[in-house]
Amino acid sequence: MPKSYVSSRSRFASSPIALVHKAAEELIRKNVNIVKFDSGDPAVYFRTPKYIIDAYVAALRSGKTYYSRAEGVRELVDAVAARYRRMYGLQASSGDVVVTEGLSEAFTFINNALADPGDRGILFRPYYAPYSVYANLNSVDPLYGDYSESEGWSIDLESLRRSLKRLSPSQKRRIKYMLLTNPNNPTGTVLDRKVLREVVDIASQNDIFLISDEIYDELVFGKRFTSIAEVAKGVPYSIMNGASKDFDATGFRVGFIITPGNDRRSEQVRSAFSDYAVERLCANTPAQYAVAEGISNLKEHSRSIEKMRSAIESRVKFASKMLSENRYLNVIEPHGAFYVFPRIDLKALHMKSDDEFVFSALKEKHVQIRSGTAFGSPSHFRMVALAPKDILEDGINRINDFCRKHARTGP
Amino acid sequence: MPKSYVSSRSRFASSPIALVHKAAEELIRKNVNIVKFDSGDPAVYFRTPKYIIDAYVAALRSGKTYYSRAEGVRELVDAVAARYRRMYGLQASSGDVVVTEGLSEAFTFINNALADPGDRGILFRPYYAPYSVYANLNSVDPLYGDYSESEGWSIDLESLRRSLKRLSPSQKRRIKYMLLTNPNNPTGTVLDRKVLREVVDIASQNDIFLISDEIYDELVFGKRFTSIAEVAKGVPYSIMNGASKDFDATGFRVGFIITPGNDRRSEQVRSAFSDYAVERLCANTPAQYAVAEGISNLKEHSRSIEKMRSAIESRVKFASKMLSENRYLNVIEPHGAFYVFPRIDLKALHMKSDDEFVFSALKEKHVQIRSGTAFGSPSHFRMVALAPKDILEDGINRINDFCRKHARTGP
Repeated sequence: MPKSYVSSRSRFASSPIALVHKAAEELIRKNVNIVKFDSGDPAVYFRTPKYIIDAYVAALRSGKTYYSRAEGVRELVDAVAARYRRMYGLQASSGDVVVTEGLSEAFTFINNALADPGDRGILFRPYYAPYSVYANLNSVDPLYGDYSESEGWSIDLESLRRSLKRLSPSQKRRIKYMLLTNPNNPTGTVLDRKVLREVVDIASQNDIFLISDEIYDELVFGKRFTSIAEVAKGVPYSIMNGASKDFDATGFRVGFIITPGNDRRSEQVRSAFSDYAVERLCANTPAQYAVAEGISNLKEHSRSIEKMRSAIESRVKFASKMLSENRYLNVIEPHGAFYVFPRIDLKALHMKSDDEFVFSALKEKHVQIRSGTAFGSPSHFRMVALAPKDILEDGINRINDFCRKHARTGP
Repeated sequence: MPKSYVSSRSRFASSPIALVHKAAEELIRKNVNIVKFDSGDPAVYFRTPKYIIDAYVAALRSGKTYYSRAEGVRELVDAVAARYRRMYGLQASSGDVVVTEGLSEAFTFINNALADPGDRGILFRPYYAPYSVYANLNSVDPLYGDYSESEGWSIDLESLRRSLKRLSPSQKRRIKYMLLTNPNNPTGTVLDRKVLREVVDIASQNDIFLISDEIYDELVFGKRFTSIAEVAKGVPYSIMNGASKDFDATGFRVGFIITPGNDRRSEQVRSAFSDYAVERLCANTPAQYAVAEGISNLKEHSRSIEKMRSAIESRVKFASKMLSENRYLNVIEPHGAFYVFPRIDLKALHMKSDDEFVFSALKEKHVQIRSGTAFGSPSHFRMVALAPKDILEDGINRINDFCRKHARTGP
């Protein structure tokens, strides 16, 4: 092995996605036309609403370019608290909110505030890849639960209970948080209220702090979304959310964590988040004013979100249907976010892994998707269904052709 | 001790500055007029240049609100590399640059990329407080060198050499970086080229990666500034810089790390920084285009920086002179940045600590400064000399009155 000058923990930051990305960039340099289904960025396909841009410009023009309040500018924390009161009946106040530089920063805050090196956090597979990266980078050891494909990608409560039961009291004490994503990336699952209630019970019985990443909470279709705020009364928890998806402003890097409890634990966690925020000074100041307007201007927001949501719904359904016509894939229809996460019949395709599937699809058919392995669930791939239908159709035709071809040719 | 629900490492993020801040906020709520010399934010006193705001607005209006390249948008990394070629004759290329969400994020990248838990980094006291916080938060143990007050706050090379000599080879191998700040916060020291050369030699002889935080490199007066880029040829190093100070845009949260070496170590470090950047997706996209224009538009920049630099020079000199007329303070004149860092004759003032000094000055005279202890150098305080002269005069009069009063009254 060649001498390494960088830390051994840096291996956690070395993403398998980067290799696919590099291969794609090389093809692009050769003028190959790649259909990109890899990045979950609505702002590439939908213009960030004008009223939000106007508010951003107004903040800039009025000189709001200084360091701002570490936990977030007043206008934004007020708007976030009001949103949770309005949408979920939560008794939230502005002091419960800490604004972060996107949820990536929130993951760092959470791992550092809740856990010491050697402590553990529960993640459910398939998970949004950075959860596991940021846990590991901060010396927190993930304990994996599962979303169960056979239960429509709902949380496998039985196996969660079993694995918690197997732990000794001292092992259990090292579990510092349990992190849900609802709606889920990459599966698009919207959890039933009943399931959420059981998750809350499990967290409460085992004295585990609950975190719910609800960044897609307004991108839900054909099902009712339940926020943890509606079912976790009296149990300490945080909700993560932000401007990226519901407000179509990924490039702003504005996220937030709401920790509404009045119990001692919630108070301490809130105060630690605030300490971490102070250390990095602030999030981008003018962007925060833009997001404050984004949230507060209900009339403009409901118009834009409904337009985007219904476009996304029809694109996801279109992609989901086309992919489910492929006999080598098993598709569970998503009810939120904008991903489809099919299981691949690798055996029928004479392939060894989903990574092979992803690399070959890129090389042979110039379509870029992500392997399930990157989300902790091998034998799957994730595609982003945000592009207009003609592009979706072109790309999925390529995937389907690719599967047919490999099913025909022997191993 | 009450039960703690948060991690034990969270204590590192709990800033002593926060207590002063809280006390100040309480006074402000009571309508007390506080003279604030605590926050190093030029954008409070100088408007961010209009040409930069215009570029920011243009980026927003043209829809640049999506996730952008993880290491920074092309325009910005090109502009940064060109700046270093132009200003310091450095053979830098765009691939050497990684854009960060302010330098706070850069500190996390550096500690994680270079060091594993239990490794060490050399910091010089007095240091910019977050250096030590981010080292500790990431389980990196600071090894302290010193700026020597008796040598005009230059680096104490002899004691650095001595402490390195005392270490066993295995202890020495755990030292992963040495971090300079030039010009320094809080002392305003601009290091002599000769001293820098010796630091480079020490780093090189001991196989330690060098990092130079040069965020104030255009805010220098009465002395020539030398960048590490001019003297560290052939030795692996990184430079940190950003938009906050030279471009008067603290609230943008745009920093960058340049790692220009062609050696194997620099290559590995660069690649690790890039991995960390990929994991958090990107920095604020439109702000990056604004900073690219900020750096590239030389005509506009030289006009704005010269105006701000000369105003700051005259304010720092004014504050420095007024404070040095106080016989209970020892002031070393700064040649860069915008801080004054006097030593307090605590004994003559019948005080136990600089923290007592800072709290009492706030309570009795309503002037807000920071204790030297927060920078690793007790018996000092830091004041920010960015305010217009009438405010400086008012605040320093309060400090000087405060000292006279306490010198008179017994212990």
